[in-house]
Amino acid sequence: MQELSLGQFGLVYNMLSLATAAMFGSFIFFILGRSQVSFRFRPALVMSALVVGIAGYHYWRIFNSWDGAYEINAAGTAYVATGKPFNDAYRYVDWLLTVPLLVAELIAVMTLPKGKSGPMMGKLIIASALMIALGYPGEVTNDMTTALVWGTLSSIPFAYILYVLWGELSKATAGESPEVNVLFRNTKLLLIGTWGFYPITYLLGIESLGLVSGADALVSLQVGYSIADIAAKCGYGLMIYAIAKARMEAAGESADPAFAKAA
Amino acid sequence: MQELSLGQFGLVYNMLSLATAAMFGSFIFFILGRSQVSFRFRPALVMSALVVGIAGYHYWRIFNSWDGAYEINAAGTAYVATGKPFNDAYRYVDWLLTVPLLVAELIAVMTLPKGKSGPMMGKLIIASALMIALGYPGEVTNDMTTALVWGTLSSIPFAYILYVLWGELSKATAGESPEVNVLFRNTKLLLIGTWGFYPITYLLGIESLGLVSGADALVSLQVGYSIADIAAKCGYGLMIYAIAKARMEAAGESADPAFAKAA
Repeated sequence: MQELSLGQFGLVYNMLSLATAAMFGSFIFFILGRSQVSFRFRPALVMSALVVGIAGYHYWRIFNSWDGAYEINAAGTAYVATGKPFNDAYRYVDWLLTVPLLVAELIAVMTLPKGKSGPMMGKLIIASALMIALGYPGEVTNDMTTALVWGTLSSIPFAYILYVLWGELSKATAGESPEVNVLFRNTKLLLIGTWGFYPITYLLGIESLGLVSGADALVSLQVGYSIADIAAKCGYGLMIYAIAKARMEAAGESADPAFAKAA
Repeated sequence: MQELSLGQFGLVYNMLSLATAAMFGSFIFFILGRSQVSFRFRPALVMSALVVGIAGYHYWRIFNSWDGAYEINAAGTAYVATGKPFNDAYRYVDWLLTVPLLVAELIAVMTLPKGKSGPMMGKLIIASALMIALGYPGEVTNDMTTALVWGTLSSIPFAYILYVLWGELSKATAGESPEVNVLFRNTKLLLIGTWGFYPITYLLGIESLGLVSGADALVSLQVGYSIADIAAKCGYGLMIYAIAKARMEAAGESADPAFAKAA
């Protein structure tokens, strides 16, 4: 493992801590936010909370692993590897659990008719687990061709998920208010924007592509994934919350127990 | 204790972390899920939460024990024993507490008539504690005959539990909707599938049987038990939740405080 400058080590260190704080902060928000939405939207808030709770756990672990993998040299001028490997697999373990939940979150906030939600969640959860599992062999290899092959395979379920979600979203939003439509459109853009960020970071991390090299590749990979995770989990969860509030308003629902109205 | 390759150590390490995240994630889900089901199904959700909460604690400990039992060698090419033994007894302590609760969970979601649940839980809790206690001497021995004898003894209460549960389940589901029947059948299959996995992993772990040997035996035992635990605790709890939801629907019950209907 290469030597890192003080700035490089510190940048990743602080990004990982920022992500941990953002995840746990969002966790508390979504837990408390359940009582701010009417009953039918609470499952979406529960899933948002699970996503950021699980991610918070993993960021805590990644932070500790990063901290244990490097130590400052005797002169205090750089960070050198301690010999304890930095465990990058935490990210994939995290995505394996959280990405299916992110998909489920969006389906939950659409409140599709019964009998439709279940099968759709089933298909998309399998596709998202496949997407993550196929990406992993490419992430850990040092061979460019292997990385590109697995990266491409992983894009197939990714395209399938987007295709199914888009179709469903346009049907689900057909009868909704303009405000709800705008929110759904923004969530779609956020989903494309953040999920599209992962393949870019993945490509940056392939050293032999020569986009960035050595310690820079390591640092950009960690910083890139952390930013993408904050947007794709905390930011996305907030969008889901905004959709729930807007749909409640449009339907004249209240979450106030004193004035609860039927869904 | 044998030497482990980087991949072997890392596989167990990440499986243990995955199981920890899955258990704590499910814990939050079952705690929050209580308010999504009507009153009579809440005890089942409480038991689901206890199971995965207790298991999450144990996986946290097993993870730390695994991390402390090995260290990377100076060349960074393999993991060698530190001399601190890896404590496998955590799993049995966990099962001693959680397996009776898993049985109780299933009985709770059947909502049997009063006076029937109690004695049945009593019998099955004793049988499941016996099953775990009888398996343990076989797990820790290095002698194949001893392992097979205790393994066989442990199977007797296991068969008894299945016999009692099957009889009760077929009576309980007699008047239920087809959907609820399918869910109960799937839960039965999951229970056989996951509980059947433990004896297989147990056999794989008996080195002298020669099915797998040395470090492979250790690694497959840990990976196998982790996967089985995730399915038997988180997956099973989700099935119980689905049964509660389906039975609520069939009975026209709602958990929405604004429209709660008596069970």
